[in-house]
Amino acid sequence: MSVVRVDLEGVASRALAVRREADEPRSPVVRFGPDKPLKLDARVELSPFQVAYQTYGTLNADKSNAILICHALSGDQYVIGEHPATGKPGWWETMVGPGKPIDTDRYFVICPNVLGGCMGTTGPASRNPATGEPYGLSLPVITIRDTVRAQAMLLDQLGIETLFCVTGGSMGAMQALQWAVSYPERVFAALPLAGAARHSAQNIAFHEVGRQAIMADPDWRDGRYLLEGTNPRRGLAVARMAAHITYLSDAALHRKFGRKLQDRETWTFGFDADFQVESYLRHQGSMFVERFDANSYLYITRAMDYFDLAADYDGVLAHAFKGAKTRFCLVSFTSDWLFPTSDARAIVHALNAAAAPVSFAEIETDKGHDAFLLEEPELFAIVNGFLDGAARARGLSAAKG
Amino acid sequence: MSVVRVDLEGVASRALAVRREADEPRSPVVRFGPDKPLKLDARVELSPFQVAYQTYGTLNADKSNAILICHALSGDQYVIGEHPATGKPGWWETMVGPGKPIDTDRYFVICPNVLGGCMGTTGPASRNPATGEPYGLSLPVITIRDTVRAQAMLLDQLGIETLFCVTGGSMGAMQALQWAVSYPERVFAALPLAGAARHSAQNIAFHEVGRQAIMADPDWRDGRYLLEGTNPRRGLAVARMAAHITYLSDAALHRKFGRKLQDRETWTFGFDADFQVESYLRHQGSMFVERFDANSYLYITRAMDYFDLAADYDGVLAHAFKGAKTRFCLVSFTSDWLFPTSDARAIVHALNAAAAPVSFAEIETDKGHDAFLLEEPELFAIVNGFLDGAARARGLSAAKG
Repeated sequence: MSVVRVDLEGVASRALAVRREADEPRSPVVRFGPDKPLKLDARVELSPFQVAYQTYGTLNADKSNAILICHALSGDQYVIGEHPATGKPGWWETMVGPGKPIDTDRYFVICPNVLGGCMGTTGPASRNPATGEPYGLSLPVITIRDTVRAQAMLLDQLGIETLFCVTGGSMGAMQALQWAVSYPERVFAALPLAGAARHSAQNIAFHEVGRQAIMADPDWRDGRYLLEGTNPRRGLAVARMAAHITYLSDAALHRKFGRKLQDRETWTFGFDADFQVESYLRHQGSMFVERFDANSYLYITRAMDYFDLAADYDGVLAHAFKGAKTRFCLVSFTSDWLFPTSDARAIVHALNAAAAPVSFAEIETDKGHDAFLLEEPELFAIVNGFLDGAARARGLSAAKG
Repeated sequence: MSVVRVDLEGVASRALAVRREADEPRSPVVRFGPDKPLKLDARVELSPFQVAYQTYGTLNADKSNAILICHALSGDQYVIGEHPATGKPGWWETMVGPGKPIDTDRYFVICPNVLGGCMGTTGPASRNPATGEPYGLSLPVITIRDTVRAQAMLLDQLGIETLFCVTGGSMGAMQALQWAVSYPERVFAALPLAGAARHSAQNIAFHEVGRQAIMADPDWRDGRYLLEGTNPRRGLAVARMAAHITYLSDAALHRKFGRKLQDRETWTFGFDADFQVESYLRHQGSMFVERFDANSYLYITRAMDYFDLAADYDGVLAHAFKGAKTRFCLVSFTSDWLFPTSDARAIVHALNAAAAPVSFAEIETDKGHDAFLLEEPELFAIVNGFLDGAARARGLSAAKG
């Protein structure tokens, strides 16, 4: 029978590897001891905790060229270069590197794994020092603001007072916006891509489907699967498949797959993956469960659902940006139905109302939400131009070469 | 822990009830014996088989006032009146009844349960007479054309040569279109609502997520759950939740729920249904599994995926309608992203190319795909006007009263 393929070989050892990465990541990590607890929005303190991160490029003498890249739901700190777990290239090779729009010859790039993640920053797969066992659902639910708070503590530790720029797409854009609101004096420029100031009802609904798919998997074991030696792979794969559709667009799926059949001349009249789009989706599901922790998926989707930048300002987004000096550039994509242009415009209007410097570009593309990750020359030109202008305003030296 | 609520009480008895309904429905049923096999597109014959149906209104003397209503994926033959299994009103109370746009004082309405369904027409929950056990996955995969073929045999049995009109929304529209192509001489008028001439890659993708959710449920038991006394309720609930989002629109979800919380003042920082939209979705999932068979969900979604009216005509849709005499009226809804207006336009263009009589209306609404089921006065006016004009052309007597 045809279900998501589960490669049983080495499942246990890979589960161990994910768990090991959660505590002892292959990237640098800063550990915050009992003297430096993280105050969470859930009104509890997380302590001890740790933040894993990668850096690229060189910090200049006056520490004024740091760009913080915030990753999205399924991303991690491995922005470029070979991923230590999957062996694949980083998730933003198109954008970041020597001579790229985010030029590592010019800027010092930092990318931390988010709170609740599974690649070395404290998350549900991390060992709870109080019990010696993985947190599972005993980890407090975290928010985007909590993640940003932890990132600020990381920067303190790295001796970086002010960010030249904070950027990211999707959930990364949420973090970039939260940075500008929580620490306006520490952010010279902000470049949120394909984001929103709050998660929509439809997006919460899609997240809830993913969570229910995970929690419906008997191998989830009320979140205790790491202890019990199981792994809710099927549930997580279904969650990823549903989410993945939302990252693309109807037009892109039509262009890429249409109704083309997978390695066959005609329908099989069965439930096998007759259509290429089915095969592709199943592949996406299978790949994801190899590298991601199911409970992390619950925590991170929840953090996105809770994101509502205006909530602390009586629902008036402009008040969140009051007195903002940060230079903003917002980017949306015409075919992005997860974070449509209207979401970006709402932010632009609020920034305008707050008299903050902002530019905005809507890019015409059929690639959907994922366009920020893809080969999109107009996006590259905008990012390059915005950073270059900000760098001149900041008095950064021109690009090398 | 917070998962889709499963009311364990009476699960076994309800499973039995669904199974009983599959063989001995409470609605009329026509049984086709070994002398009348159904020739399936899968190149096998289904025999014996049966079609369950409901009728409303009275067939006139010359049998010229019959309207065939074709139901959608999650529908059944109980168009109006109390549903025998759920006790709820029929699925098209807004549209059908005395004095309604599809006026049962004037027209004779027939609605059969689709092939592959679970309310009395042969489907995977039906008893296979060769084994005495439910078919499960041993039932051949069926197509929309197979369903229409079975419906034509039903009409033969009822002595109805020509339909005054065939109508339906979503998958119902697919059947209406297939009727006009398979039996053009038997269809005077066709009124497909919110439909398409073929299923898109994105729609196949969403269906595949639903199927994977069902097949990932260990209680599915390779489709043998009825025999083994289990029921993949959680998988089916997740499938329904994912699908349900696609039936609505971002705007409708925002209007209905926004980010409103469910019976609480603030976030719980947990995975309970904090948001109303989550609670609503879970409810949709729970309700659906009470009345629907999981294998039927696999078969019917597959039939929709396979639907491609132009496939037998070298991909040229206009050729499918060549020489059509049927009067068509197509309706789409602006916020329907599952079967967008472009799908309807493609059909209209093909009908124009085939010089077939066609009218078309795109209705402005934020209600999404499900708009065809809801209180939508403009839709009612269009249906009423189209049927009235066709009735005059057909020489049917005017509406009573």
